[in-house]
Amino acid sequence: MLLLTRRERFNAAHKLYQEEWSAEKNAEVFGKCANKNWHGHNYELFVTVKGEINPLTGFIIDLKRLSEVLQEKVVEVLDHKNLNLDVPFLKGKMASTEVLAVSIWNEIEKEVIELGAFLHSVKLNETENNFVEYFGPNA
Amino acid sequence: MLLLTRRERFNAAHKLYQEEWSAEKNAEVFGKCANKNWHGHNYELFVTVKGEINPLTGFIIDLKRLSEVLQEKVVEVLDHKNLNLDVPFLKGKMASTEVLAVSIWNEIEKEVIELGAFLHSVKLNETENNFVEYFGPNA
Amino acid sequence: MLLLTRRERFNAAHKLYQEEWSAEKNAEVFGKCANKNWHGHNYELFVTVKGEINPLTGFIIDLKRLSEVLQEKVVEVLDHKNLNLDVPFLKGKMASTEVLAVSIWNEIEKEVIELGAFLHSVKLNETENNFVEYFGPNA
Amino acid sequence: MLLLTRRERFNAAHKLYQEEWSAEKNAEVFGKCANKNWHGHNYELFVTVKGEINPLTGFIIDLKRLSEVLQEKVVEVLDHKNLNLDVPFLKGKMASTEVLAVSIWNEIEKEVIELGAFLHSVKLNETENNFVEYFGPNA
Amino acid sequence: MLLLTRRERFNAAHKLYQEEWSAEKNAEVFGKCANKNWHGHNYELFVTVKGEINPLTGFIIDLKRLSEVLQEKVVEVLDHKNLNLDVPFLKGKMASTEVLAVSIWNEIEKEVIELGAFLHSVKLNETENNFVEYFGPNA
Amino acid sequence: MLLLTRRERFNAAHKLYQEEWSAEKNAEVFGKCANKNWHGHNYELFVTVKGEINPLTGFIIDLKRLSEVLQEKVVEVLDHKNLNLDVPFLKGKMASTEVLAVSIWNEIEKEVIELGAFLHSVKLNETENNFVEYFGPNA
Repeated sequence: MLLLTRRERFNAAHKLYQEEWSAEKNAEVFGKCANKNWHGHNYELFVTVKGEINPLTGFIIDLKRLSEVLQEKVVEVLDHKNLNLDVPFLKGKMASTEVLAVSIWNEIEKEVIELGAFLHSVKLNETENNFVEYFGPNA
Repeated sequence: MLLLTRRERFNAAHKLYQEEWSAEKNAEVFGKCANKNWHGHNYELFVTVKGEINPLTGFIIDLKRLSEVLQEKVVEVLDHKNLNLDVPFLKGKMASTEVLAVSIWNEIEKEVIELGAFLHSVKLNETENNFVEYFGPNA
Repeated sequence: MLLLTRRERFNAAHKLYQEEWSAEKNAEVFGKCANKNWHGHNYELFVTVKGEINPLTGFIIDLKRLSEVLQEKVVEVLDHKNLNLDVPFLKGKMASTEVLAVSIWNEIEKEVIELGAFLHSVKLNETENNFVEYFGPNA
Repeated sequence: MLLLTRRERFNAAHKLYQEEWSAEKNAEVFGKCANKNWHGHNYELFVTVKGEINPLTGFIIDLKRLSEVLQEKVVEVLDHKNLNLDVPFLKGKMASTEVLAVSIWNEIEKEVIELGAFLHSVKLNETENNFVEYFGPNA
Repeated sequence: MLLLTRRERFNAAHKLYQEEWSAEKNAEVFGKCANKNWHGHNYELFVTVKGEINPLTGFIIDLKRLSEVLQEKVVEVLDHKNLNLDVPFLKGKMASTEVLAVSIWNEIEKEVIELGAFLHSVKLNETENNFVEYFGPNA
Repeated sequence: MLLLTRRERFNAAHKLYQEEWSAEKNAEVFGKCANKNWHGHNYELFVTVKGEINPLTGFIIDLKRLSEVLQEKVVEVLDHKNLNLDVPFLKGKMASTEVLAVSIWNEIEKEVIELGAFLHSVKLNETENNFVEYFGPNA
């Protein structure tokens, strides 16, 4: 098994709150993450693909095209945005790191296959102390 | 000269916009940083103090008390907050990294002197690529 | 599969020596790590849990409670301690990174399950060049 | 499962070009990586081995001997070298990160087994944004 | 004094050799850095400017335009290039980190002034262990 | 002004305690750093020298010889040692980061001058959150 990973970054605002709950319950469960005026993060995204080496290029995948896909499908949609308000693919979802990682997988899986590889994992760092890794619905 | 530095971190939302300007002018000057729904960052703060070694302790300053001052005066005020809306000492100011670094200096200078040292610099990293360092009004 | 990781840190002293061996044999096998007066490290701990997203919170696990468990069961026990002398759960064991990672797994596995997730791995960095990762007795 | 990782570093020049192709085709496929006068990188190598803890030492493997093997078989051969011109085990191969990771696996697998462990993975960082991980021909 | 720093990166090949010396003398002085077939690095560049805060923007300098200047004058000229062969502003010079830092200063000083600030320093990291910082001819 | 910095690392045990004080007073002032059985750190040392570029080499200083001096005078003396018990140049001194940085300056200043440069600063990181920088008795 051979994996290749590309790192991208985006800076976004969000808050954690469950609309079905009261403000008190949200504060109890989410603490300062529920601040009504938002807070934000420098997110680090690591997208890992799996494949075979093309003997003519030595590559699993065209890394430049992979980066372009990630820019178009993820970074341009999320960077300098509000995850709760501005992002079509997060509408109606919790803006947690877990949900965001799964959602990013869904946005890019088909594109990675079109580039001739398989999506292996989406890793998303919210802070230097907290990160999530998703391996897809079949892993 | 002997300097000691303490790193603290806070995650906040902000936007850059000049209220005296139109939305178009703000977009032209601040680009995606002017997104009306905010974005955010993991800020890294490095506070550097200058002093003499106390021969009984080997310390310039009581680092635990310095960290407590930084928690109380800076981190609790800024962490998981909106820099434009939630922070008393930033009211009416631009929420740029430059202004934020100068404002943090003003919030803590007196406290550092009370701990027996001098404030030397406030360094603030907004991203891994951009940071500001302020050395006080007399430097 | 969805994983969430929390980083914690602790600074500790230790030495590597096998009590059944002579000083010479210890020096031969462990080199400078056998220094009788100890040395130490800034350890970085990455605890990874596995679970399903709770649709109400968007979380696999309550990260605040996970961090509290790690503080209570690991960091308070190891931080600013001597791994060979001060740590009940290491008594009679070699203070190697491998043994420490396995021992930390044993201290926290039950607590992670009580928080509603599964312990996936314990990664322990001793230096920037050396680290260990343990996936449990059944992996 | 218990894994131990050792990081090593080397700085090398290379270029990406397929000798069977024209200069135009190489430029089209490899972009600036095809610059005929070479470019280079600070490579970071993470070699991960798998094994059982030796109860007398607390170790999976003698880390000092593992590092010596990596120095002899990898770092001395690659550091301050041209990957396309100076490296016997890369002769006739593309100098991509993928091919380099697989080739390093082949150079060290037998030596790791002689040290009493199994080779689990070879991870190679070309830049802070791009890296490859190889798990062997049977993974 | 208020400073703002922008980080940029470039990957380049080079070698250290003095043309007036024999191969033996070059090997003696420069060691493996004199390898005739080149080696290379991931260089990290930190450009620091000094200025006053513009009260309308909160900025010392337009960071987007600073980054564009650094891309045009430095990164496009050095990235994926051979420092000894491909770079007009290094012709006839030693390709050491010291000389490179001074040369970068000379390439960008005027442009920084045109952006309304002063160039304070150019810091250049060759590896994680070695870096150079230049403060200009008048410092 | 042109500065060159070399990073070295060492791992050591220490404790903070003032022998003239009671155990209670030591615990009060130094907290967990006073643990009688020691704790330890991965120290990072950054030694910065100042000089002119030698036009024949492009160097301020012979970096290989600087690293050898730092290995001999600092790393071999401190690495895998107990700062309170094992280090001749710290005998009778507090093992604080401040005192250690000043003491390292004194150990290497003459050697740096013999290599043809001036010692500019000694920076010592005790953790990722705390570090000290010393600029010499005349700064």
